[in-house]
Amino acid sequence: MQAPELAVSRWFNTPAPITLAALRGRVVMLHAFQMLCPGCVAHGTPQAQRAHALFRDSGLAVIGLHTVFEHHAAMTPVSLEAFIHEYRLTFPIGVDQPAENGPIPITMARYQMRGTPTAILIGRDGGIRHHGFGQEDDMALGAIIGTLLAEPAP
Amino acid sequence: MQAPELAVSRWFNTPAPITLAALRGRVVMLHAFQMLCPGCVAHGTPQAQRAHALFRDSGLAVIGLHTVFEHHAAMTPVSLEAFIHEYRLTFPIGVDQPAENGPIPITMARYQMRGTPTAILIGRDGGIRHHGFGQEDDMALGAIIGTLLAEPAP
Amino acid sequence: MQAPELAVSRWFNTPAPITLAALRGRVVMLHAFQMLCPGCVAHGTPQAQRAHALFRDSGLAVIGLHTVFEHHAAMTPVSLEAFIHEYRLTFPIGVDQPAENGPIPITMARYQMRGTPTAILIGRDGGIRHHGFGQEDDMALGAIIGTLLAEPAP
Amino acid sequence: MQAPELAVSRWFNTPAPITLAALRGRVVMLHAFQMLCPGCVAHGTPQAQRAHALFRDSGLAVIGLHTVFEHHAAMTPVSLEAFIHEYRLTFPIGVDQPAENGPIPITMARYQMRGTPTAILIGRDGGIRHHGFGQEDDMALGAIIGTLLAEPAP
Repeated sequence: MQAPELAVSRWFNTPAPITLAALRGRVVMLHAFQMLCPGCVAHGTPQAQRAHALFRDSGLAVIGLHTVFEHHAAMTPVSLEAFIHEYRLTFPIGVDQPAENGPIPITMARYQMRGTPTAILIGRDGGIRHHGFGQEDDMALGAIIGTLLAEPAP
Repeated sequence: MQAPELAVSRWFNTPAPITLAALRGRVVMLHAFQMLCPGCVAHGTPQAQRAHALFRDSGLAVIGLHTVFEHHAAMTPVSLEAFIHEYRLTFPIGVDQPAENGPIPITMARYQMRGTPTAILIGRDGGIRHHGFGQEDDMALGAIIGTLLAEPAP
Repeated sequence: MQAPELAVSRWFNTPAPITLAALRGRVVMLHAFQMLCPGCVAHGTPQAQRAHALFRDSGLAVIGLHTVFEHHAAMTPVSLEAFIHEYRLTFPIGVDQPAENGPIPITMARYQMRGTPTAILIGRDGGIRHHGFGQEDDMALGAIIGTLLAEPAP
Repeated sequence: MQAPELAVSRWFNTPAPITLAALRGRVVMLHAFQMLCPGCVAHGTPQAQRAHALFRDSGLAVIGLHTVFEHHAAMTPVSLEAFIHEYRLTFPIGVDQPAENGPIPITMARYQMRGTPTAILIGRDGGIRHHGFGQEDDMALGAIIGTLLAEPAP
């Protein structure tokens, strides 16, 4: 399945908005999280930061997506900005665009995510190659990244 | 040194406001934290929750104090309430009262805290017996609690 | 219950044999372990080393006891000596004296231990005050140590 | 560089001796360890067990190598057998053949290992593709494994 495009209302840690279309040919890791989700803070988000540190020079683009689907008033962009600062996150992070109807933001709905954290890996051809909800094992995730990076660009 | 009274603008996890005066005769552990302080979320706050679970039936009163001294707009009571819910914190938590001048809230200033997390232990006589900044060792903290609980009420 | 005397066939990390009788008036922590017991290596033995580091100047005597009750040929004193060296253990450690009949060594039988690791705390009066099998919580153990150290010598 | 053949004096967890020659065409992970090496017990050996569990059905052969170069009397095959049993290790483990002269066993010398733990990854063509000493990051190791597994057999 082709990865749907991102719908982002505000970006952090990037000089310009990011689109998956522009990243075609690279391997992309989407890390969907909420700043008040304990499993994200303890596992998913540090794991995304490690992936960014390990593989950014090998062609992996790690992109955070703040998919707020609960406690909306508690996790505004103002709070997210302080969170990014305090946790020293350096990969690009987008705020998933709120929907006009309902609590689920647009990108989260497009990818049919079940919650946070969610890790999605997209191959060089733009196809979704992994869609994982919850705590991911570092070694298993590394193996998928290694496999995708080894594939030739289409 | 006698423990100064708390100045709290809003309480969570308690049916009524708490004062140190009313707790005289019990051992009190004050856990000062900020919801976006990584060292609090990873160590200090879970440690306070463990102390609450271990010793509440032995006479220890664990009290959280949300001492916001930076990123004020990011850590409002609305955000704190979601944080308490998501992290399943069950001990009483007060919002340290903002000062009229400057970023340091009132109780934090009274205790001359250096930052978050700070753990303060108060004996049955109301005296400050431990004042620690940063990551505290579980076993060392347990020994102080055990010593204070073993003291007779004044 | 009074703590039975130790039966030790060989000592490490002490210039002279140790008896509980000679330690009367001090608080004693017995850490019974086997060098090939995973729960000892991962939790119990590092915890005993931490207790030794934290409280030896406060009057706690931490004593290790190598209570081999299985794989006897695999855990001889020669192997234990290398284990103590590699894991940088600095508290006194005695080899529990093998029984003439059966696999359970003498001190282990006297204390009716159920396995390893076992943590036993002995008060200043020589009485057993805690007898725990398996993984012990650092904070709970610290509280017991703090309570016992706060008691006056008999 | 082609991976030198193993020299093993005794095998555990395998019905028949293993040679790298017979594994040609598969990806091989050699985990060199000593049962009394703390960094092996805490990190390297559990990591090898995880790699075995994750990738054995994908074509990775994890092989342990007990490369005793110190405390020889303390780490005999009798002790190793109990260690394997107690730590529930299920991948094949060979005892690196002692040298006639000097403390370094034969396979360890052939691979010019610097100590334990050492992780070596061998591609399907029998070439050494990774040679790491000390604690290896799970995600980085996973990426190498994923890359090698993605390569076609020669």
